[in-house]
Amino acid sequence: MTALPLLAGVELGGTKCVCILARGPDAIEEEVRIPTTRPDETLAAVEAVLERWRGFAALGIASFGPVSIDRHAGDYGHVTATPKPGWSGADIAGRLARVAGVPTGFHTDVVGAALAEARWGAAEGLADMAYVTVGTGIGAGLIAGGRPVDGLGHGEFGHLRPVRMAGDDWVGACPFHGACVEGLASGPAIKARAGQSAESLDLHDPVWDGVAHALGQLCHALVLTGVPRRIVMGGGVMVGMPHLFPMIRTATTRSLAGYVSSPDVALADTFVVPAALGGRAGPLGAILLGAQALEERLGAAFTTS
Amino acid sequence: MTALPLLAGVELGGTKCVCILARGPDAIEEEVRIPTTRPDETLAAVEAVLERWRGFAALGIASFGPVSIDRHAGDYGHVTATPKPGWSGADIAGRLARVAGVPTGFHTDVVGAALAEARWGAAEGLADMAYVTVGTGIGAGLIAGGRPVDGLGHGEFGHLRPVRMAGDDWVGACPFHGACVEGLASGPAIKARAGQSAESLDLHDPVWDGVAHALGQLCHALVLTGVPRRIVMGGGVMVGMPHLFPMIRTATTRSLAGYVSSPDVALADTFVVPAALGGRAGPLGAILLGAQALEERLGAAFTTS
Repeated sequence: MTALPLLAGVELGGTKCVCILARGPDAIEEEVRIPTTRPDETLAAVEAVLERWRGFAALGIASFGPVSIDRHAGDYGHVTATPKPGWSGADIAGRLARVAGVPTGFHTDVVGAALAEARWGAAEGLADMAYVTVGTGIGAGLIAGGRPVDGLGHGEFGHLRPVRMAGDDWVGACPFHGACVEGLASGPAIKARAGQSAESLDLHDPVWDGVAHALGQLCHALVLTGVPRRIVMGGGVMVGMPHLFPMIRTATTRSLAGYVSSPDVALADTFVVPAALGGRAGPLGAILLGAQALEERLGAAFTTS
Repeated sequence: MTALPLLAGVELGGTKCVCILARGPDAIEEEVRIPTTRPDETLAAVEAVLERWRGFAALGIASFGPVSIDRHAGDYGHVTATPKPGWSGADIAGRLARVAGVPTGFHTDVVGAALAEARWGAAEGLADMAYVTVGTGIGAGLIAGGRPVDGLGHGEFGHLRPVRMAGDDWVGACPFHGACVEGLASGPAIKARAGQSAESLDLHDPVWDGVAHALGQLCHALVLTGVPRRIVMGGGVMVGMPHLFPMIRTATTRSLAGYVSSPDVALADTFVVPAALGGRAGPLGAILLGAQALEERLGAAFTTS
């Protein structure tokens, strides 16, 4: 891997946007935070930052979802159906690319964070990995050969319907699927089930068993994709809960039942690990999305070896 | 996509090997079938064919699994742990590549068939698709941007543990996982449950409901990868059972519950479809694996646009 040129990255989050002008985590020239309000207001503020920064080689955008990442589709680069007022159908990538005037990459915030963890974080140096975020929702980003795995759309592994833990028939909290992984193990699901927030819930509360079971099933499914050499887990529910990691590793190993014999997977302590970059993963991932857009334009390789 | 050069393809199956010398389905110069016996005997017969054919631009091998496809691993191109006598640890790709002396691609027979269905079959022209085979086992090959999705290993989606159908607590037939998708819906699983083979089972037998539910959960999970614009299903159980397709489509659509709003997915009749190439998918996929190995060597593009 070669050094990165100067890049602009925008993480468009549900409550705030983080814009960075950087070559990497140790070379951040400037960082600007903008509250996420209405699309017009928010994007105009981002545009003003990008105009001031002019001179960067590429732009990357890591956005909250759902978004269209299908380049053949008319709504490429738009937010699709979201409950967030005003944002359904908002054009993000087209609008910011016009202002930036440079190659522009666009993907989900989850995939952005995955790319950053793969280059600089808990899966440093691994071209094949998965990143799972467990917070208000549950998402997973899959990176294969250094590139996001996608096609028609982006991954939505949080909505997998796992086999239920023996004796557990709680209906779950997902408005679409009830007891999908997100409906069983997201922050709101934990709160709905336990009657209190995840942070305040006793470490020995049996609710955690169901959470670990569901997340173990998600890891089982991610292993079955054949892709990850490591699974990195972050997000609000994971960050303050180190006791969850051994529980998820045990659930994953038991569920696979020896079927996948790779030593990478069998060594569950190094296979399912905490995220390392925290809140910086999103904006750092955004610059990597910009770098990959530039690579495609130039036929060069900054991000894969 | 440009025309293919002359390529050699080997589908290494559990009972027979099919070797073809071809430029595509309408330009097969020669086809040789070799029974799969002991590795030495079988591979020596394949080598003799390849030596006689010398002059092809690349070789592709689509093998029964499990196999190592991790190019960084010492066992790349080998069969790994298999109950098939003598084949555990057999070096396939290295041995045949030495004889062929040309760029050599290697993957599973399932991924080979997926590539062939994507180029010439039921997903013709779609760079993002999934192919599912339901037979003695259940496997799925995922193609994104015209390339197999893999990393540490190949996909093993057949061993997903699906949520159970309401009221169904049959233990399943998978020796590792019991009621995983393969343990619920493979040919041997149907026979174990129904007491008779899938082919002879009445179309209205309630056993089919559980089979369709499990395969619908597999399709649900494949949709959540974000990759497929179409899911192509083949294999011994699917081929003679057209009544299964509407059942699987209904199970998939109900399970997704409107969460994935893409019209490609919502039009389930054109989203989950029967395979078109039958037994030719394997050897034709093998030549595409050869073409992709050649592309990597030359930096050319025969198989992706």
